[in-house]
Amino acid sequence: MTKIFDDPAQFADDALDGFVAANRQYVARVDGGVVRSTETPQGQVALVIGGGSGHYPAFAGLVGAGLAAGSACGNMFASPSAGQAYRVAKASQSGGGVLFSYGNYAGDVLHFGQAQDKLNAEGIETRTVLVTDDVASAPLDEIGKRRGIAGDLTVFKVAGAAAEAGLDLDEVERLAIKANHHTRSLGVAFAGCTLPGAAEPLFTVPEGMMSVGLGIHGEPGISEQPLPTASELARLLVDGLLKDKPETAGRRVVPILNGLGTVKYDELFLLFGKVEALLAEAGLEIVEPECGELVTSLDMSGLSLTLFWLDAELEKFWAAPADTPAFRKGNLAPRRERTVASLAEAGTTTPALAATPASTALAATAVGALKEARSVVVEHEDALGKLDAIAGDGDHGIGMRRGVDAAVAAAEKSHAAGAGLEELLAAAGEQWAERAGGTSGALWGAAVTAVGRTLGSKETYTAADAAAAVNALRDAIITLGKAEAGDKTMVDALLPFADTFNKAIDDGGSLASSLRAAAEAAARAADATAELSPKKGRARPLAEKSLGHPDPGAVSFGLIALRVAEYAATLESH
Amino acid sequence: MTKIFDDPAQFADDALDGFVAANRQYVARVDGGVVRSTETPQGQVALVIGGGSGHYPAFAGLVGAGLAAGSACGNMFASPSAGQAYRVAKASQSGGGVLFSYGNYAGDVLHFGQAQDKLNAEGIETRTVLVTDDVASAPLDEIGKRRGIAGDLTVFKVAGAAAEAGLDLDEVERLAIKANHHTRSLGVAFAGCTLPGAAEPLFTVPEGMMSVGLGIHGEPGISEQPLPTASELARLLVDGLLKDKPETAGRRVVPILNGLGTVKYDELFLLFGKVEALLAEAGLEIVEPECGELVTSLDMSGLSLTLFWLDAELEKFWAAPADTPAFRKGNLAPRRERTVASLAEAGTTTPALAATPASTALAATAVGALKEARSVVVEHEDALGKLDAIAGDGDHGIGMRRGVDAAVAAAEKSHAAGAGLEELLAAAGEQWAERAGGTSGALWGAAVTAVGRTLGSKETYTAADAAAAVNALRDAIITLGKAEAGDKTMVDALLPFADTFNKAIDDGGSLASSLRAAAEAAARAADATAELSPKKGRARPLAEKSLGHPDPGAVSFGLIALRVAEYAATLESH
Repeated sequence: MTKIFDDPAQFADDALDGFVAANRQYVARVDGGVVRSTETPQGQVALVIGGGSGHYPAFAGLVGAGLAAGSACGNMFASPSAGQAYRVAKASQSGGGVLFSYGNYAGDVLHFGQAQDKLNAEGIETRTVLVTDDVASAPLDEIGKRRGIAGDLTVFKVAGAAAEAGLDLDEVERLAIKANHHTRSLGVAFAGCTLPGAAEPLFTVPEGMMSVGLGIHGEPGISEQPLPTASELARLLVDGLLKDKPETAGRRVVPILNGLGTVKYDELFLLFGKVEALLAEAGLEIVEPECGELVTSLDMSGLSLTLFWLDAELEKFWAAPADTPAFRKGNLAPRRERTVASLAEAGTTTPALAATPASTALAATAVGALKEARSVVVEHEDALGKLDAIAGDGDHGIGMRRGVDAAVAAAEKSHAAGAGLEELLAAAGEQWAERAGGTSGALWGAAVTAVGRTLGSKETYTAADAAAAVNALRDAIITLGKAEAGDKTMVDALLPFADTFNKAIDDGGSLASSLRAAAEAAARAADATAELSPKKGRARPLAEKSLGHPDPGAVSFGLIALRVAEYAATLESH
Repeated sequence: MTKIFDDPAQFADDALDGFVAANRQYVARVDGGVVRSTETPQGQVALVIGGGSGHYPAFAGLVGAGLAAGSACGNMFASPSAGQAYRVAKASQSGGGVLFSYGNYAGDVLHFGQAQDKLNAEGIETRTVLVTDDVASAPLDEIGKRRGIAGDLTVFKVAGAAAEAGLDLDEVERLAIKANHHTRSLGVAFAGCTLPGAAEPLFTVPEGMMSVGLGIHGEPGISEQPLPTASELARLLVDGLLKDKPETAGRRVVPILNGLGTVKYDELFLLFGKVEALLAEAGLEIVEPECGELVTSLDMSGLSLTLFWLDAELEKFWAAPADTPAFRKGNLAPRRERTVASLAEAGTTTPALAATPASTALAATAVGALKEARSVVVEHEDALGKLDAIAGDGDHGIGMRRGVDAAVAAAEKSHAAGAGLEELLAAAGEQWAERAGGTSGALWGAAVTAVGRTLGSKETYTAADAAAAVNALRDAIITLGKAEAGDKTMVDALLPFADTFNKAIDDGGSLASSLRAAAEAAARAADATAELSPKKGRARPLAEKSLGHPDPGAVSFGLIALRVAEYAATLESH
């Protein structure tokens, strides 16, 4: 159980500050994560990694010479925002371009992807290599859908060493892709982990049982079986990986036995001894193995075995020196400290927009609506988290809470400064995406921003403007999230919402009554997602567990829509 | 909970094998522990550390250039035997003498002390520096009684760096003593740890509470309080240490924040940030801190803060490079691998002794008696462990079990080879001490050996021989353990046992009836130790908790005596 904090909401930030305090010779804090505190030769490719916090040493512990140049650090188990990834990359790059690499999770893909677009648009050439090592997360013929777990390390290590060797972005990217193709992992879990401030673990495994194929976020496993002996467990893991070995696999292999938090060193070593014997029995030669805690999940009880099949060039970069807080290999000449000036990062200030009195007045209404949204999210935070834990990573409640909290704070600040609607919603949307992390944070952030942009700063607002705003909200979510009707996502609530609203306004309904009808349609549609099988997003890998339960993102959309409709009704009645 | 093993009894051995398999570039396995697998310059002082297993990276993880030359690795939470410490030291030394350093625990002191005597007798100059950093384990005016916890690291690091710098044994010893004098630690715990194969944790802390002053073996704490915030906890730890700071303390200090197993990295970092701020507030300058898992206790939930006050020479050796599996600092030139020949260790073979038919016949009886002892230990193993956990480290049951199992196995092997009584009991005693670890293992081993030596190989045996054997058993335990009547140790059962036996034999009683009377006296005296306050041994630091509960060592002595008396009665009745 995670017990040490002042304010659970500040846990990830406070922990990152302390991490930097304990490791100043390696890392410096920047807005959004950490970068090397040492100088990097000009022209070197910058490997920028990242993801949610709670997985130390992934990801911040792997920043240093010979490995990552920087790490974007999201909230607990939540993707960093696009802004975070962008700012960390800007502060990390040394003129040789940026390689983003991270585990294949929807929220990370979305946010790092946005950051990549922005960096490329600014002339900083940026590529991405996703890590997809977890054999339990999708079958071999859908290898691109697999998620990344402890195999992150092999891809990061090879890419970081290639960058350190002065190779260009094409080569670093090619080697990272090759390392990922030669890496397979399989994990098991004995007990769940508890997020800071939560009273109960994110999930549980029955006493005396072991869950096979668990990810690193407490995603439910693909099967359960009684606790095996160490020898049986070694057999299960080795067989599971050898069965899935890449076509180009040779005989030299790096085993990485990774503890997820509370399976301790002696247990890992004991199991490693059994694994080593089985690999030798299979005719494999073991090269520079790792056994310890490399990608954790807070206090989760579990472990994973990774096999990384080498060829000559992969072996060279695996064996190359690296010097980071949590991973050291060989000897690297000491680096000079970076100057404070070189750490100054690109600001992202938004110029003030001119606002009409009508826009400023509407901004006050927007603040009220966001506060109503916050209040309904707070009421349902726990329930949304539990619903999400059935077939996802359980962070939907806390993520929505963080996002809407940040949006309200930004909106209030903007409003106090006299901002118009567009500026206010842009600030609120940016903060929602920034603080919530995860896919839904990005979608809500984009939606809020799009509503503001559409309503802009007009002299007067009509029913047609309301319909345009709703359509803009719908389009922003669909464009960014790429989900379709029936995929079991918030889109399944969003589409009936927009359709119903448009029809009601066309029929001459008032804003409040149209909103009411639309919200009711959304809530009904959200409930109906229980019968859908997920095709995209959080619940896809666990389709069976998801059946019979509605999609949390659709549910939260319906709840917010209903509450905002109630709020609109009180305004109209005054 | 510790879950990964094949046979819990083999856990420590299997884990050590796997540790070596994962770290061959650093360590090689020798009988009793591990030594560097790399060459060490001739004439360098060998720092040999060690203690019970279950504390990784202490102790085997700290073997490597710039730190320890070898580590004697006992069973789970149990001291290595004298033979283990001796053999590891022999395989570690490079002609510059040996410095033993380890935490101040009775079992370790006893066994390393015996090894030191033997090494010195062989001309290998050996010294000892005990680590006594835990401020909670005894008041400042009894600083020599304090136990060692995570402060081990500062003493080992300074001594290892001094040895690496080529300083002689006098200087390495002086610096290690100085490092210990400048080191203070204070720990807290939130939940206990579970030994491999045990169904329940060794101890528990009530939900929502924190125990202050816990050691690393699950010794009960000195106070309990509700779970504090991170800032409050930082304050408690920093204040507790600054209050106890050494007289010679300057302003430069190394903070070491150590996780005991399931308090995870983000929590440690978060707390480190608070600790750093308080130390700065107190006017201290922070030098090369450590924050992570350095001395653990399996899956125990807890942590400790160590402060190490520097002067110029301590800072130089703290900052010096080191390269070990678990602790790396700076850059050291790569070392050549040690040759297999240089790893060959001194054998300890016992020459066969001549045996009379009477001695060989009595040997069969001794095997029977040891088997009876084993059966009573097995029956009470859990109860003895629980009794010991009240005010000790909870290993008395498992330690007695291991010792008596090994003694029976050795005795059966000797008997099958036709050995006489002396040889058989010497083998049994040696194995008891070797496998049990801990103080009571050493005492029982010495007692069994002494009985054999006294009875020797005679043509016939009389009642006087029995009395001489009982007296030899008594004297061996008292000489080695240095406890007196009333200290609340097994001696409180032993003395009435011997007195009653001698008197009964003097009064013309049969062997069986005298043994029966003596055993009953021992069992009564063992029960009566409940009213004693401990003055020596396992329960001394926790005198209050111990009151009202008998001493586990006295209880097991009484149980074995009763069972052996019953066995003697069956022999006499035939």
